[in-house]
Amino acid sequence: MRLEELTNDSCERECPVRKTAEIIDGKWTSLIIRDLLGGKKRFSELQRSLEGISPKMLSARMRFLEERGIVRKKIYPVVPPHTEYSLTQKGQGLVAVIEAMAAFGASL
Amino acid sequence: MRLEELTNDSCERECPVRKTAEIIDGKWTSLIIRDLLGGKKRFSELQRSLEGISPKMLSARMRFLEERGIVRKKIYPVVPPHTEYSLTQKGQGLVAVIEAMAAFGASL
Repeated sequence: MRLEELTNDSCERECPVRKTAEIIDGKWTSLIIRDLLGGKKRFSELQRSLEGISPKMLSARMRFLEERGIVRKKIYPVVPPHTEYSLTQKGQGLVAVIEAMAAFGASL
Repeated sequence: MRLEELTNDSCERECPVRKTAEIIDGKWTSLIIRDLLGGKKRFSELQRSLEGISPKMLSARMRFLEERGIVRKKIYPVVPPHTEYSLTQKGQGLVAVIEAMAAFGASL
Protein backbone atom coordinates (compact mmCIF):
# COMPACT_ATOMS: atom_id res chain seq x y z
CA MET A 1 0.00 0.00 0.00
CA ARG A 2 1.46 3.37 -0.99
CA LEU A 3 1.79 6.18 1.53
CA GLU A 4 -0.82 8.34 -0.20
CA GLU A 5 -3.44 5.61 -0.08
CA LEU A 6 -2.53 4.99 3.51
CA THR A 7 -3.01 8.54 4.72
CA ASN A 8 -5.56 10.23 2.51
CA ASP A 9 -8.58 9.22 4.58
CA SER A 10 -9.55 9.45 8.22
CA CYS A 11 -8.82 6.38 10.25
CA GLU A 12 -12.33 5.02 10.48
CA ARG A 13 -13.41 1.59 11.65
CA GLU A 14 -12.52 0.05 8.29
CA CYS A 15 -9.03 1.57 8.10
CA PRO A 16 -6.53 -1.29 7.71
CA VAL A 17 -4.07 0.20 10.21
CA ARG A 18 -6.85 0.31 12.79
CA LYS A 19 -7.76 -3.32 12.13
CA THR A 20 -4.19 -4.38 12.84
CA ALA A 21 -3.92 -2.05 15.83
CA GLU A 22 -6.98 -3.71 17.33
CA ILE A 23 -5.05 -6.99 17.33
CA ILE A 24 -1.52 -5.97 18.30
CA ASP A 25 -1.93 -2.79 20.36
CA GLY A 26 -2.34 -4.42 23.76
CA LYS A 27 0.76 -4.39 25.91
CA TRP A 28 2.84 -7.58 25.29
CA THR A 29 0.93 -8.69 22.21
CA SER A 30 3.61 -7.89 19.65
CA LEU A 31 6.23 -9.53 21.89
CA ILE A 32 4.17 -12.72 22.14
CA ILE A 33 3.89 -12.82 18.34
CA ARG A 34 7.64 -12.21 18.03
CA ASP A 35 8.30 -15.19 20.29
CA LEU A 36 6.02 -17.47 18.29
CA LEU A 37 7.63 -16.53 14.96
CA GLY A 38 10.50 -18.77 16.06
CA GLY A 39 8.15 -21.76 16.37
CA LYS A 40 5.68 -23.23 18.82
CA LYS A 41 6.14 -22.51 22.51
CA ARG A 42 4.77 -23.75 25.81
CA PHE A 43 3.05 -21.39 28.20
CA SER A 44 6.00 -21.57 30.60
CA GLU A 45 8.48 -20.78 27.81
CA LEU A 46 6.52 -17.69 26.83
CA GLN A 47 6.35 -16.59 30.43
CA ARG A 48 10.11 -16.98 30.84
CA SER A 49 10.83 -15.05 27.66
CA LEU A 50 8.41 -12.22 28.42
CA GLU A 51 10.23 -10.97 31.48
CA GLY A 52 7.78 -9.10 33.72
CA ILE A 53 4.44 -10.50 32.43
CA SER A 54 2.07 -12.05 34.98
CA PRO A 55 0.53 -15.49 34.28
CA LYS A 56 -2.92 -13.87 34.38
CA MET A 57 -1.98 -11.29 31.74
CA LEU A 58 -0.31 -13.91 29.56
CA SER A 59 -3.42 -16.13 29.72
CA ALA A 60 -5.64 -13.20 28.79
CA ARG A 61 -3.45 -12.24 25.83
CA MET A 62 -3.26 -15.83 24.55
CA ARG A 63 -7.04 -16.18 24.78
CA PHE A 64 -7.49 -12.89 22.90
CA LEU A 65 -5.10 -13.96 20.12
CA GLU A 66 -6.71 -17.39 19.89
CA GLU A 67 -10.19 -15.84 19.56
CA ARG A 68 -8.93 -13.65 16.72
CA GLY A 69 -7.40 -16.59 14.86
CA ILE A 70 -3.81 -15.42 15.29
CA VAL A 71 -2.70 -18.22 17.61
CA ARG A 72 -3.58 -21.91 17.87
CA LYS A 73 -3.56 -23.68 21.23
CA LYS A 74 -2.89 -27.40 21.46
CA ILE A 75 -3.35 -29.31 24.69
CA TYR A 76 -1.56 -32.64 25.11
CA PRO A 77 -3.50 -34.92 27.49
CA VAL A 78 -0.57 -35.91 29.65
CA VAL A 79 -0.14 -35.44 33.40
CA PRO A 80 0.41 -32.58 34.07
CA PRO A 81 -1.29 -31.27 30.88
CA HIS A 82 1.10 -29.76 28.38
CA THR A 83 -0.09 -26.74 26.39
CA GLU A 84 1.59 -25.53 23.25
CA TYR A 85 0.92 -22.36 21.24
CA SER A 86 1.75 -21.66 17.63
CA LEU A 87 0.91 -18.99 15.07
CA THR A 88 -1.86 -19.74 12.59
CA GLN A 89 -1.35 -18.90 8.92
CA LYS A 90 -3.16 -15.63 9.59
CA GLY A 91 -0.80 -14.94 12.50
CA GLN A 92 2.22 -15.59 10.27
CA GLY A 93 1.02 -12.61 8.25
CA LEU A 94 2.23 -10.38 11.07
CA VAL A 95 5.89 -11.23 10.44
CA ALA A 96 6.39 -8.07 8.33
CA VAL A 97 5.00 -5.91 11.14
CA ILE A 98 7.32 -7.47 13.71
CA GLU A 99 10.30 -7.16 11.35
CA ALA A 100 9.57 -3.48 10.77
CA MET A 101 9.26 -2.98 14.55
CA ALA A 102 12.62 -4.70 15.04
CA ALA A 103 14.31 -2.54 12.41
CA PHE A 104 12.96 0.66 13.99
CA GLY A 105 13.86 -0.47 17.50
CA ALA A 106 17.39 -1.34 16.40
CA SER A 107 17.82 2.22 15.09
CA LEU A 108 16.96 3.82 18.44
CA MET B 1 16.98 -7.99 10.47
CA ARG B 2 16.52 -11.66 9.55
CA LEU B 3 13.89 -13.78 11.23
CA GLU B 4 16.45 -15.96 13.01
CA GLU B 5 18.17 -12.96 14.57
CA LEU B 6 14.79 -11.61 15.52
CA THR B 7 13.62 -14.67 17.39
CA ASN B 8 16.64 -16.49 18.75
CA ASP B 9 16.74 -14.63 22.08
CA SER B 10 14.25 -13.88 24.79
CA CYS B 11 12.59 -10.52 24.52
CA GLU B 12 14.55 -8.70 27.18
CA ARG B 13 14.64 -4.98 27.86
CA GLU B 14 17.07 -4.41 25.01
CA CYS B 15 15.09 -6.38 22.42
CA PRO B 16 14.38 -4.05 19.46
CA VAL B 17 10.76 -5.19 19.10
CA ARG B 18 10.19 -4.33 22.75
CA LYS B 19 11.71 -0.86 22.28
CA THR B 20 9.28 -0.13 19.46
CA ALA B 21 6.37 -1.70 21.35
CA GLU B 22 7.06 0.66 24.24
CA ILE B 23 6.42 3.57 21.86
CA ILE B 24 3.53 2.36 19.71
CA ASP B 25 1.64 -0.14 21.87
CA GLY B 26 -0.70 2.29 23.58
CA LYS B 27 -4.21 2.37 22.16
CA TRP B 28 -4.45 5.01 19.36
CA THR B 29 -0.71 5.59 19.07
CA SER B 30 -0.20 3.86 15.73
CA LEU B 31 -3.28 5.63 14.34
CA ILE B 32 -1.92 9.03 15.39
CA ILE B 33 1.37 8.26 13.63
CA ARG B 34 -0.55 7.10 10.55
CA ASP B 35 -2.39 10.41 10.46
CA LEU B 36 0.82 12.43 10.74
CA LEU B 37 2.53 10.51 7.92
CA GLY B 38 0.33 12.55 5.60
CA GLY B 39 1.79 15.82 6.97
CA LYS B 40 1.34 18.14 9.92
CA LYS B 41 -2.05 18.28 11.62
CA ARG B 42 -3.82 20.45 14.13
CA PHE B 43 -5.14 18.97 17.35
CA SER B 44 -8.73 19.32 16.13
CA GLU B 45 -7.91 17.59 12.84
CA LEU B 46 -6.43 14.62 14.70
CA GLN B 47 -9.44 14.46 16.96
CA ARG B 48 -11.81 14.43 13.99
CA SER B 49 -9.85 11.73 12.23
CA LEU B 50 -9.50 9.49 15.29
CA GLU B 51 -13.18 8.79 15.67
CA GLY B 52 -13.90 7.87 19.30
CA ILE B 53 -10.82 9.33 21.02
CA SER B 54 -11.38 11.73 23.95
CA PRO B 55 -9.51 15.08 24.00
CA LYS B 56 -7.89 14.01 27.27
CA MET B 57 -6.58 10.76 25.78
CA LEU B 58 -5.39 12.54 22.64
CA SER B 59 -3.49 15.12 24.73
CA ALA B 60 -1.88 12.39 26.78
CA ARG B 61 -0.79 10.45 23.68
CA MET B 62 0.62 13.57 22.00
CA ARG B 63 2.60 14.46 25.12
CA PHE B 64 3.95 10.91 25.33
CA LEU B 65 5.04 10.95 21.67
CA GLU B 66 6.57 14.40 22.04
CA GLU B 67 8.59 13.30 25.09
CA ARG B 68 9.95 10.34 23.14
CA GLY B 69 10.99 12.51 20.20
CA ILE B 70 8.48 11.01 17.74
CA VAL B 71 6.33 14.13 17.36
CA ARG B 72 7.08 17.84 17.32
CA LYS B 73 4.56 20.35 18.63
CA LYS B 74 4.49 23.90 17.31
CA ILE B 75 2.31 26.57 18.90
CA TYR B 76 1.43 29.63 16.85
CA PRO B 77 0.83 32.64 19.12
CA VAL B 78 -2.44 33.75 17.60
CA VAL B 79 -5.81 34.14 19.27
CA PRO B 80 -7.03 31.47 19.88
CA PRO B 81 -3.66 29.66 19.94
CA HIS B 82 -3.12 27.31 17.04
CA THR B 83 -1.20 24.08 17.71
CA GLU B 84 0.29 21.95 15.02
CA TYR B 85 1.88 18.50 15.28
CA SER B 86 4.30 16.85 12.90
CA LEU B 87 6.52 13.78 12.90
CA THR B 88 10.19 14.28 13.70
CA GLN B 89 12.82 12.53 11.59
CA LYS B 90 12.85 9.77 14.20
CA GLY B 91 9.06 9.50 13.95
CA GLN B 92 9.28 9.19 10.15
CA GLY B 93 11.23 6.00 10.82
CA LEU B 94 7.94 4.38 11.82
CA VAL B 95 6.54 4.56 8.28
CA ALA B 96 7.59 0.95 7.55
CA VAL B 97 5.77 -0.27 10.66
CA ILE B 98 2.57 1.55 9.69
CA GLU B 99 2.81 0.29 6.10
CA ALA B 100 3.22 -3.30 7.30
CA MET B 101 0.22 -2.84 9.63
CA ALA B 102 -1.83 -1.50 6.70
CA ALA B 103 -0.87 -4.43 4.48
CA PHE B 104 -1.84 -6.94 7.17
CA GLY B 105 -5.08 -5.13 7.99
CA ALA B 106 -6.03 -5.01 4.30
CA SER B 107 -5.65 -8.80 4.14
CA LEU B 108 -8.18 -9.44 6.94
